[in-house]
Amino acid sequence: MLKAAVLGATGNVGQIFIQLLNGHPLFKVSAVAASERSTERTYSKAAKWRQQTPIPEDVADLDVVAIEPKAVKDVDVVFSALPADVAGRTEENFAKAGYVVVSNASAHRMDPDVPLLNPEINCNHVSLIEEQRKKRKWDGAIVTNPNCSASVLTLPLKPIYDNFGINKVVVSTMQAISGAGYPGVPSLDIVDNVVPFIGKEEEKLETETLKILGSPSEPADFKVSSSCHRVPTLDGHMEAVFVELRREAEPESVIAAMENFVGEPQKLKLPTAPKKPVLVRREDNRPQTRLDRMEGNGMSVVVGRVRKDPVLRGIKFVALGHNTIRGAAGCGVLNAEYLKAKKYI
Amino acid sequence: MLKAAVLGATGNVGQIFIQLLNGHPLFKVSAVAASERSTERTYSKAAKWRQQTPIPEDVADLDVVAIEPKAVKDVDVVFSALPADVAGRTEENFAKAGYVVVSNASAHRMDPDVPLLNPEINCNHVSLIEEQRKKRKWDGAIVTNPNCSASVLTLPLKPIYDNFGINKVVVSTMQAISGAGYPGVPSLDIVDNVVPFIGKEEEKLETETLKILGSPSEPADFKVSSSCHRVPTLDGHMEAVFVELRREAEPESVIAAMENFVGEPQKLKLPTAPKKPVLVRREDNRPQTRLDRMEGNGMSVVVGRVRKDPVLRGIKFVALGHNTIRGAAGCGVLNAEYLKAKKYI
Amino acid sequence: MLKAAVLGATGNVGQIFIQLLNGHPLFKVSAVAASERSTERTYSKAAKWRQQTPIPEDVADLDVVAIEPKAVKDVDVVFSALPADVAGRTEENFAKAGYVVVSNASAHRMDPDVPLLNPEINCNHVSLIEEQRKKRKWDGAIVTNPNCSASVLTLPLKPIYDNFGINKVVVSTMQAISGAGYPGVPSLDIVDNVVPFIGKEEEKLETETLKILGSPSEPADFKVSSSCHRVPTLDGHMEAVFVELRREAEPESVIAAMENFVGEPQKLKLPTAPKKPVLVRREDNRPQTRLDRMEGNGMSVVVGRVRKDPVLRGIKFVALGHNTIRGAAGCGVLNAEYLKAKKYI
Amino acid sequence: MLKAAVLGATGNVGQIFIQLLNGHPLFKVSAVAASERSTERTYSKAAKWRQQTPIPEDVADLDVVAIEPKAVKDVDVVFSALPADVAGRTEENFAKAGYVVVSNASAHRMDPDVPLLNPEINCNHVSLIEEQRKKRKWDGAIVTNPNCSASVLTLPLKPIYDNFGINKVVVSTMQAISGAGYPGVPSLDIVDNVVPFIGKEEEKLETETLKILGSPSEPADFKVSSSCHRVPTLDGHMEAVFVELRREAEPESVIAAMENFVGEPQKLKLPTAPKKPVLVRREDNRPQTRLDRMEGNGMSVVVGRVRKDPVLRGIKFVALGHNTIRGAAGCGVLNAEYLKAKKYI
Repeated sequence: MLKAAVLGATGNVGQIFIQLLNGHPLFKVSAVAASERSTERTYSKAAKWRQQTPIPEDVADLDVVAIEPKAVKDVDVVFSALPADVAGRTEENFAKAGYVVVSNASAHRMDPDVPLLNPEINCNHVSLIEEQRKKRKWDGAIVTNPNCSASVLTLPLKPIYDNFGINKVVVSTMQAISGAGYPGVPSLDIVDNVVPFIGKEEEKLETETLKILGSPSEPADFKVSSSCHRVPTLDGHMEAVFVELRREAEPESVIAAMENFVGEPQKLKLPTAPKKPVLVRREDNRPQTRLDRMEGNGMSVVVGRVRKDPVLRGIKFVALGHNTIRGAAGCGVLNAEYLKAKKYI
Repeated sequence: MLKAAVLGATGNVGQIFIQLLNGHPLFKVSAVAASERSTERTYSKAAKWRQQTPIPEDVADLDVVAIEPKAVKDVDVVFSALPADVAGRTEENFAKAGYVVVSNASAHRMDPDVPLLNPEINCNHVSLIEEQRKKRKWDGAIVTNPNCSASVLTLPLKPIYDNFGINKVVVSTMQAISGAGYPGVPSLDIVDNVVPFIGKEEEKLETETLKILGSPSEPADFKVSSSCHRVPTLDGHMEAVFVELRREAEPESVIAAMENFVGEPQKLKLPTAPKKPVLVRREDNRPQTRLDRMEGNGMSVVVGRVRKDPVLRGIKFVALGHNTIRGAAGCGVLNAEYLKAKKYI
Repeated sequence: MLKAAVLGATGNVGQIFIQLLNGHPLFKVSAVAASERSTERTYSKAAKWRQQTPIPEDVADLDVVAIEPKAVKDVDVVFSALPADVAGRTEENFAKAGYVVVSNASAHRMDPDVPLLNPEINCNHVSLIEEQRKKRKWDGAIVTNPNCSASVLTLPLKPIYDNFGINKVVVSTMQAISGAGYPGVPSLDIVDNVVPFIGKEEEKLETETLKILGSPSEPADFKVSSSCHRVPTLDGHMEAVFVELRREAEPESVIAAMENFVGEPQKLKLPTAPKKPVLVRREDNRPQTRLDRMEGNGMSVVVGRVRKDPVLRGIKFVALGHNTIRGAAGCGVLNAEYLKAKKYI
Repeated sequence: MLKAAVLGATGNVGQIFIQLLNGHPLFKVSAVAASERSTERTYSKAAKWRQQTPIPEDVADLDVVAIEPKAVKDVDVVFSALPADVAGRTEENFAKAGYVVVSNASAHRMDPDVPLLNPEINCNHVSLIEEQRKKRKWDGAIVTNPNCSASVLTLPLKPIYDNFGINKVVVSTMQAISGAGYPGVPSLDIVDNVVPFIGKEEEKLETETLKILGSPSEPADFKVSSSCHRVPTLDGHMEAVFVELRREAEPESVIAAMENFVGEPQKLKLPTAPKKPVLVRREDNRPQTRLDRMEGNGMSVVVGRVRKDPVLRGIKFVALGHNTIRGAAGCGVLNAEYLKAKKYI
């Protein structure tokens, strides 16, 4: 068993990391780090645990330590659920100290020498680690997973891109409140309401998507236009996607491409890899956020309503993914599993 | 004061008609008609009134009558809030009997000789009434208002279309539960959920938009692609709109065109006409469904986040309108006011 | 493995029965029965499955049969999730035909010769089966589980009643929408709303509680006053309980009595028995409906805020239980497990 | 027109004060005060306005000033929507400076020489002002309105207390999120959830009720036991009330007492006084939070389900009131109107 630290362990994504690592066959949480107001207490005291499963017993009694390399001591991998403003410098410090940092933070995602992995799609991007180490002169590494809405969008786009080519993507999101963390969205702002704005979300979705679907050195050669909205759901981002294809395709061909799509994580049978990264439902009224977000233990993206788009000469569909699992901690854990399989950890 | 009948008076849209006609300066509800299980009772007994204002006193005691011309007797205008399957033949019977039917039902909206009015945009389409009367050999008339999501979409599109031209529109909706009437959407289907399908909604939105923005005889010459979703809000349809323009335009020019837009109802100072049919908010996070749906007493469409769309070479924005007021009964009442001003009633 | 039939299998509680029996160590669903409009189709076609886990594969392909003894054929136990109006006569027919019917329906709950089991509390009431068979001249049996709100209330009352005696109980409920089945509560009736009425719920809660806590032949000798309300939650009934005690008691003594409470199902290690039938939380703000309803796989009642009640000279607390598991299908399955252990099945 | 200052003007209750004073026949907002981070900006800039009606134009351009007597200058009355921790000393400073402070804060509510007015019930308590001035040696005054849940409870209790006497009250509340202000309750804490705890709410409800229903010098001679819960509604506190009466009474007599109840505000025809302070609905399923909270412009308490309580030998019913209108700013405005009528302002 490899020892893992979780940075930002008391926050919402930190809690999901701890939940997903509970009983994990490869990793065991041995250090939990959080901001100063949480240290010098046990995790169960410091974390205001808000998950539907209890705090894992062996984590509950860990002392919360400072977010510093010397405080987490001898761990084999560091999961970062830090807020963006703290993550930048902190993750660098850990990499300098020799740690492999698997990060959910946005700070380094778009750095040219940092892999931004949605691993079924682009795990070949881990090759950037060599460049990163050389350039930054450190023995550790920083590997990131995408923003939640980009995690969900890119999985169904990948088989489309590979099979039919993409000119343009127009996407509208309906995102869950858990995406804003805790305390996050005030209830007075979202009960019986839609908020048509999420800070920096559209920029992230539009740029990260191209990095993920591109080569290690170049972004994909199409454009994404997005409109991001918060709706009153707890978990699960629904996205309405309109795609202009390079080569015309019937909905059935697109569905077949999606259903046949698997990536390295499936081939390597990584523990967190869902059997189907993209699962297509044929019913008119699926996927639905509450009913389908846990598909593949929250790691599958569920697609529905695949149909012709006469306006963009292509295809339109809806896609749903769990924003704190596939869109955050689950993707991070899968990244770590891949890094382990490839001996980076 | 003109006497008005409301058909389908006990349903949700019927109740909104009665609410909006309460204290109206031109029309007074003198007959309420509903399906057989409601007749032979007073309106207050038959309608399961679910509005936040009380049943208007003078309507409460009206006897509910059958949905037949002879039952509503001498009224000057007939508002129809009938379900689509009943509306088709019934509204024809009323027109044959000489009544002007102002309908919210979809049955006749796309008939070539029936005006489909969002009156700030296309009240010149009333000219179709002559054709309708000649062709159908009746003295009455059927005039319709658009589907709720088309009512909201077309208002901000009109000044864009007039000023810059439109090639393509891609639109994703986030629609309120009241759009499905009562009992409508089961709560188990929508609490903490998004349902990415509303029966026939996309077809209506895509075709009605073009009829409204076209000439009386021809639809507008662009294409609309839509994806329609139900979200957990009570009232108010939010729409994310992406427009490919014919002539390039800066967001500020588009905003100016929207803000300057007024139609005949404003010029005629019709009682239900909002001061601004399209109201533009500059804040990043507006419009919001709950906060802005009652703008202009529910008759304004509130637009926000007007920004460049690099992908479609155009403009994107969000638009919000009240689905049972601008999107249904309010639009019907405004239509009737226009018909009155033009002596059709 | 014993063969089980589920009556009313396509409804909400029927689906929960099938979900809970999936992978059960003792029972295997071999027949699914539903009303005529569902028969002559497979279960996966007939049931509009709305659970977050997929339809169990072996049940998906079963043909839905009529709700008649001859249609379910050779099964060892019959679970009834029938609506009350159908359940009365139908369950009698099954008992006459020799089946043991484990019912969630209210029809026979208050019959003096029918056990109403919340099994940790009163499994000794199974002795009524002998009386029932003699009196009704049948070889089968009808055994019922309580109404959902009574299931939740009676578990924490039992250790109080046994240790301190009870004079009076005043209880207000905040009940989830799933308690009304599907389609059940219209969304327009419950979003941003509380409905202070649930048909017959108060009567059931007030009478069933006393039968459960009484002896097989006599109800318990205290009184219950209730007020029942529907709130916008999906699953989980929260109840605010005020108890006038016979013998004064400190909160800590009451908590200890609750925490030490176990029943026959725990002693017999029945598969569905939760480790703790009553689990007490010490935090001020727990239990919470969404966070705690799945405690003990939905079979535990979680109690919190145990404190002195100066007005009733006793104790007040809140209790939360999962209404479709402990309050319906889960309790039924536990009853069947007990009946099997006692050779009634 | 009298000039009014609003302290804490940018918060949620402050905004409601400004909304209710817009167009008021007696008072005109001429000063808005808020904490330092809001000063030196106009109100429209400083307040994150979240109401469904627009910011009143004449208030929008006021400069926000510090919460100090010298900053608000010459106003005739000061409305305080300050948080409890700030209100205590600040309101005293204003009273010392000669201002009449009409406060919604809890800081001084239970001071023996401060009137706690729910004005239909106990406006005779204004006599305490003389005592207060003498004892505290100031020319101004502090007058408070009750906590939101006590405002709602006490109105229907008053006619019961007067007509039948009360021994005991047991009450469970289902309170809206707006009661916690803004940002207040995180959405992750309340969507699909009930939280069975609101800090200090039960203490306030249990003590304030007795002060309001007592004489100026002595609390009422019965006891209240409460359990307070937060539910997912925006506005409106629903309360399930069980009352042990001194003298037995039929529900119809209790209803008659409630319906006949009016207070000084009605007799004086104060502008904010609702026609009926307590309005009784006879339908089984009313009041409902969303449908009935605006009754009497949010100033009426709506009662329903009045029925016998066999356990407490009395009466049980549900009561609903708007927590930020009757339960906060609306009650404050009504208090000020009464003080004006009585020449205290």
